[in-house]
Amino acid sequence: MIEVVDIEEKLAQFSAPWQPKIVGQVNDTLVKLVRFQGDFVWHHHEREDELFFVVRGRFTMKLRDGDVVIEAGQFITIPHGVEHCPCAAEECCVMLLEPATTLNTGNVRNERTLERLERL
Amino acid sequence: MIEVVDIEEKLAQFSAPWQPKIVGQVNDTLVKLVRFQGDFVWHHHEREDELFFVVRGRFTMKLRDGDVVIEAGQFITIPHGVEHCPCAAEECCVMLLEPATTLNTGNVRNERTLERLERL
Repeated sequence: MIEVVDIEEKLAQFSAPWQPKIVGQVNDTLVKLVRFQGDFVWHHHEREDELFFVVRGRFTMKLRDGDVVIEAGQFITIPHGVEHCPCAAEECCVMLLEPATTLNTGNVRNERTLERLERL
Repeated sequence: MIEVVDIEEKLAQFSAPWQPKIVGQVNDTLVKLVRFQGDFVWHHHEREDELFFVVRGRFTMKLRDGDVVIEAGQFITIPHGVEHCPCAAEECCVMLLEPATTLNTGNVRNERTLERLERL
Protein backbone atom coordinates (compact mmCIF):
# COMPACT_ATOMS: atom_id res chain seq x y z
CA MET A 1 0.00 0.00 0.00
CA ILE A 2 1.63 3.20 -1.23
CA GLU A 3 0.53 6.24 0.78
CA VAL A 4 0.55 9.86 -0.32
CA VAL A 5 1.74 11.84 2.71
CA ASP A 6 0.43 15.39 3.07
CA ILE A 7 2.75 17.50 5.21
CA GLU A 8 0.14 19.98 6.40
CA GLU A 9 -2.35 17.21 7.18
CA LYS A 10 0.28 15.51 9.35
CA LEU A 11 1.30 18.77 11.03
CA ALA A 12 -2.34 19.40 11.96
CA GLN A 13 -2.22 16.26 14.12
CA PHE A 14 0.15 17.64 16.76
CA SER A 15 1.12 20.95 18.30
CA ALA A 16 3.79 20.39 20.96
CA PRO A 17 7.23 21.72 20.00
CA TRP A 18 10.42 19.62 19.93
CA GLN A 19 8.57 16.34 19.57
CA PRO A 20 9.36 14.85 16.17
CA LYS A 21 6.86 12.46 14.61
CA ILE A 22 7.72 9.88 11.98
CA VAL A 23 5.74 10.37 8.77
CA GLY A 24 7.68 8.36 6.23
CA GLN A 25 10.75 6.33 5.37
CA VAL A 26 13.01 5.94 2.36
CA ASN A 27 15.60 3.16 2.66
CA ASP A 28 17.26 3.63 6.09
CA THR A 29 16.25 7.29 6.33
CA LEU A 30 13.26 8.38 8.38
CA VAL A 31 11.19 11.41 7.42
CA LYS A 32 10.07 13.26 10.53
CA LEU A 33 8.05 16.39 11.13
CA VAL A 34 8.74 18.63 14.09
CA ARG A 35 7.65 22.01 15.38
CA PHE A 36 10.38 24.26 16.71
CA GLN A 37 9.55 26.99 19.21
CA GLY A 38 12.00 28.56 21.64
CA ASP A 39 15.49 27.16 22.23
CA PHE A 40 16.45 23.48 22.06
CA VAL A 41 19.66 22.09 23.61
CA TRP A 42 23.21 22.03 22.32
CA HIS A 43 24.07 18.54 21.13
CA HIS A 44 25.71 16.57 18.37
CA HIS A 45 25.29 13.16 16.78
CA GLU A 46 28.28 10.84 16.81
CA ARG A 47 27.64 9.09 13.54
CA GLU A 48 24.56 10.52 11.84
CA ASP A 49 24.16 13.55 9.60
CA GLU A 50 20.86 15.36 9.96
CA LEU A 51 18.96 17.36 7.33
CA PHE A 52 16.55 20.16 8.32
CA PHE A 53 14.10 21.37 5.64
CA VAL A 54 11.91 24.32 6.64
CA VAL A 55 8.30 23.78 5.62
CA ARG A 56 6.92 26.93 7.28
CA GLY A 57 8.46 29.81 9.26
CA ARG A 58 12.17 30.17 9.93
CA PHE A 59 14.67 29.11 12.57
CA THR A 60 18.21 29.84 13.62
CA MET A 61 20.73 27.01 13.77
CA LYS A 62 23.28 28.01 16.40
CA LEU A 63 26.71 26.61 15.60
CA ARG A 64 29.91 27.04 17.57
CA ASP A 65 31.35 29.24 14.83
CA GLY A 66 28.25 31.34 14.14
CA ASP A 67 24.51 31.30 13.61
CA VAL A 68 22.72 30.39 10.38
CA VAL A 69 19.11 31.34 9.58
CA ILE A 70 17.06 28.83 7.56
CA GLU A 71 13.86 30.07 5.90
CA ALA A 72 10.87 28.24 4.39
CA GLY A 73 11.93 26.40 1.23
CA GLN A 74 15.53 26.05 2.41
CA PHE A 75 17.43 23.20 4.00
CA ILE A 76 20.68 22.65 5.86
CA THR A 77 22.62 19.47 6.58
CA ILE A 78 24.47 19.22 9.89
CA PRO A 79 27.30 16.69 9.56
CA HIS A 80 27.84 14.18 12.34
CA GLY A 81 30.07 15.45 15.10
CA VAL A 82 29.07 19.11 14.65
CA GLU A 83 27.55 20.71 17.72
CA HIS A 84 24.32 22.54 17.00
CA CYS A 85 21.33 24.08 18.76
CA PRO A 86 18.13 24.91 16.85
CA CYS A 87 16.20 27.96 18.07
CA ALA A 88 13.00 29.56 16.78
CA ALA A 89 11.70 32.92 17.98
CA GLU A 90 8.33 32.00 16.46
CA GLU A 91 6.94 28.61 15.60
CA CYS A 92 8.69 26.90 12.72
CA CYS A 93 7.68 23.63 11.03
CA VAL A 94 10.57 21.44 9.89
CA MET A 95 10.94 18.20 7.95
CA LEU A 96 13.88 16.18 9.31
CA LEU A 97 15.76 13.49 7.41
CA GLU A 98 17.92 11.23 9.53
CA PRO A 99 18.56 7.54 10.19
CA ALA A 100 16.22 5.54 12.37
CA THR A 101 19.00 5.35 14.95
CA THR A 102 19.16 9.13 15.56
CA LEU A 103 18.20 10.32 19.04
CA ASN A 104 16.69 13.82 19.06
CA THR A 105 19.09 15.14 21.70
CA GLY A 106 22.13 13.32 20.25
CA ASN A 107 24.87 12.88 22.84
CA VAL A 108 22.79 14.61 25.53
CA ARG A 109 20.10 12.91 27.60
CA ASN A 110 17.71 15.13 29.49
CA GLU A 111 14.00 15.82 29.92
CA ARG A 112 13.72 16.54 26.21
CA THR A 113 15.11 13.20 25.10
CA LEU A 114 12.56 11.04 23.29
CA GLU A 115 13.51 7.37 23.16
CA ARG A 116 10.59 6.39 20.96
CA LEU A 117 8.86 8.55 18.40
CA GLU A 118 5.23 8.36 17.44
CA ARG A 119 4.47 7.39 13.84
CA LEU A 120 1.61 9.34 12.27
CA MET B 1 31.44 24.78 5.48
CA ILE B 2 27.72 24.36 6.13
CA GLU B 3 25.58 25.62 3.24
CA VAL B 4 21.98 26.76 3.36
CA VAL B 5 20.35 25.35 0.22
CA ASP B 6 17.46 27.33 -1.27
CA ILE B 7 15.21 25.13 -3.39
CA GLU B 8 13.88 27.88 -5.65
CA GLU B 9 17.34 29.35 -6.16
CA LYS B 10 18.58 25.93 -7.30
CA LEU B 11 15.55 25.34 -9.53
CA ALA B 12 16.21 28.66 -11.26
CA GLN B 13 19.53 27.24 -12.49
CA PHE B 14 18.05 24.70 -14.90
CA SER B 15 14.95 24.21 -17.01
CA ALA B 16 15.19 20.90 -18.89
CA PRO B 17 12.75 18.23 -17.66
CA TRP B 18 13.76 14.75 -16.46
CA GLN B 19 17.32 15.78 -15.63
CA PRO B 20 17.83 15.53 -11.86
CA LYS B 21 20.51 17.72 -10.27
CA ILE B 22 22.17 16.94 -6.95
CA VAL B 23 21.70 19.73 -4.40
CA GLY B 24 22.53 18.05 -1.11
CA GLN B 25 23.36 14.91 0.79
CA VAL B 26 22.50 13.45 4.19
CA ASN B 27 24.39 10.28 5.11
CA ASP B 28 24.12 7.98 2.05
CA THR B 29 21.04 9.75 0.69
CA LEU B 30 21.28 12.30 -2.08
CA VAL B 31 18.87 15.22 -2.34
CA LYS B 32 18.06 15.92 -5.98
CA LEU B 33 15.82 18.40 -7.73
CA VAL B 34 14.09 17.56 -10.97
CA ARG B 35 11.49 19.07 -13.26
CA PHE B 36 8.82 16.71 -14.57
CA GLN B 37 6.97 17.52 -17.79
CA GLY B 38 5.26 14.97 -20.02
CA ASP B 39 5.65 11.22 -19.54
CA PHE B 40 8.79 9.48 -18.28
CA VAL B 41 9.44 5.74 -18.79
CA TRP B 42 8.20 2.72 -16.88
CA HIS B 43 11.00 1.38 -14.68
CA HIS B 44 11.84 0.07 -11.25
CA HIS B 45 14.86 0.07 -8.96
CA GLU B 46 16.16 -3.31 -7.86
CA ARG B 47 17.37 -2.29 -4.42
CA GLU B 48 16.61 1.36 -3.75
CA ASP B 49 13.46 3.03 -2.46
CA GLU B 50 12.80 6.48 -3.90
CA LEU B 51 10.99 9.40 -2.27
CA PHE B 52 9.25 12.08 -4.39
CA PHE B 53 8.34 15.34 -2.62
CA VAL B 54 6.41 17.85 -4.75
CA VAL B 55 7.77 21.36 -4.33
CA ARG B 56 5.55 23.00 -6.97
CA GLY B 57 2.77 21.75 -9.26
CA ARG B 58 1.46 18.19 -9.30
CA PHE B 59 2.21 14.93 -11.06
CA THR B 60 0.70 11.51 -11.56
CA MET B 61 2.63 8.43 -10.50
CA LYS B 62 1.45 5.62 -12.74
CA LEU B 63 1.61 2.29 -10.97
CA ARG B 64 0.63 -1.11 -12.33
CA ASP B 65 -2.36 -1.23 -10.00
CA GLY B 66 -3.56 2.36 -10.48
CA ASP B 67 -2.53 5.99 -10.70
CA VAL B 68 -1.74 8.26 -7.75
CA VAL B 69 -1.72 12.07 -7.92
CA ILE B 70 0.84 13.89 -5.76
CA GLU B 71 0.32 17.60 -5.12
CA ALA B 72 2.61 20.34 -3.81
CA GLY B 73 3.41 19.72 -0.13
CA GLN B 74 2.92 15.96 -0.48
CA PHE B 75 5.32 13.08 -0.91
CA ILE B 76 5.25 9.45 -1.91
CA THR B 77 7.80 6.68 -1.41
CA ILE B 78 8.12 4.05 -4.12
CA PRO B 79 9.59 0.87 -2.62
CA HIS B 80 12.32 -0.96 -4.51
CA GLY B 81 10.99 -3.45 -7.03
CA VAL B 82 7.78 -1.51 -7.70
CA GLU B 83 7.31 -0.47 -11.31
CA HIS B 84 6.39 3.17 -11.74
CA CYS B 85 6.16 5.89 -14.36
CA PRO B 86 5.94 9.57 -13.36
CA CYS B 87 3.91 11.81 -15.67
CA ALA B 88 3.11 15.52 -15.45
CA ALA B 89 0.58 17.25 -17.71
CA GLU B 90 2.13 20.58 -16.68
CA GLU B 91 5.55 21.27 -15.27
CA CYS B 92 6.08 19.94 -11.77
CA CYS B 93 9.13 20.53 -9.53
CA VAL B 94 10.12 17.60 -7.36
CA MET B 95 12.67 16.95 -4.61
CA LEU B 96 13.97 13.38 -4.84
CA LEU B 97 15.57 11.44 -1.99
CA GLU B 98 17.45 8.33 -3.01
CA PRO B 99 20.84 6.66 -2.57
CA ALA B 100 23.83 7.82 -4.57
CA THR B 101 23.69 4.51 -6.46
CA THR B 102 20.22 5.13 -7.96
CA LEU B 103 20.04 5.45 -11.75
CA ASN B 104 17.20 7.71 -12.94
CA THR B 105 15.76 5.09 -15.31
CA GLY B 106 16.30 2.18 -12.91
CA ASN B 107 16.42 -1.15 -14.72
CA VAL B 108 15.91 0.53 -18.11
CA ARG B 109 18.67 2.12 -20.16
CA ASN B 110 17.65 4.42 -22.97
CA GLU B 111 18.17 7.95 -24.26
CA ARG B 112 16.87 9.34 -20.97
CA THR B 113 19.38 7.50 -18.82
CA LEU B 114 21.83 9.83 -17.05
CA GLU B 115 24.96 8.08 -15.83
CA ARG B 116 26.32 11.14 -14.05
CA LEU B 117 24.30 13.92 -12.50
CA GLU B 118 25.37 17.53 -12.23
CA ARG B 119 25.83 18.89 -8.72
CA LEU B 120 24.54 22.45 -8.25
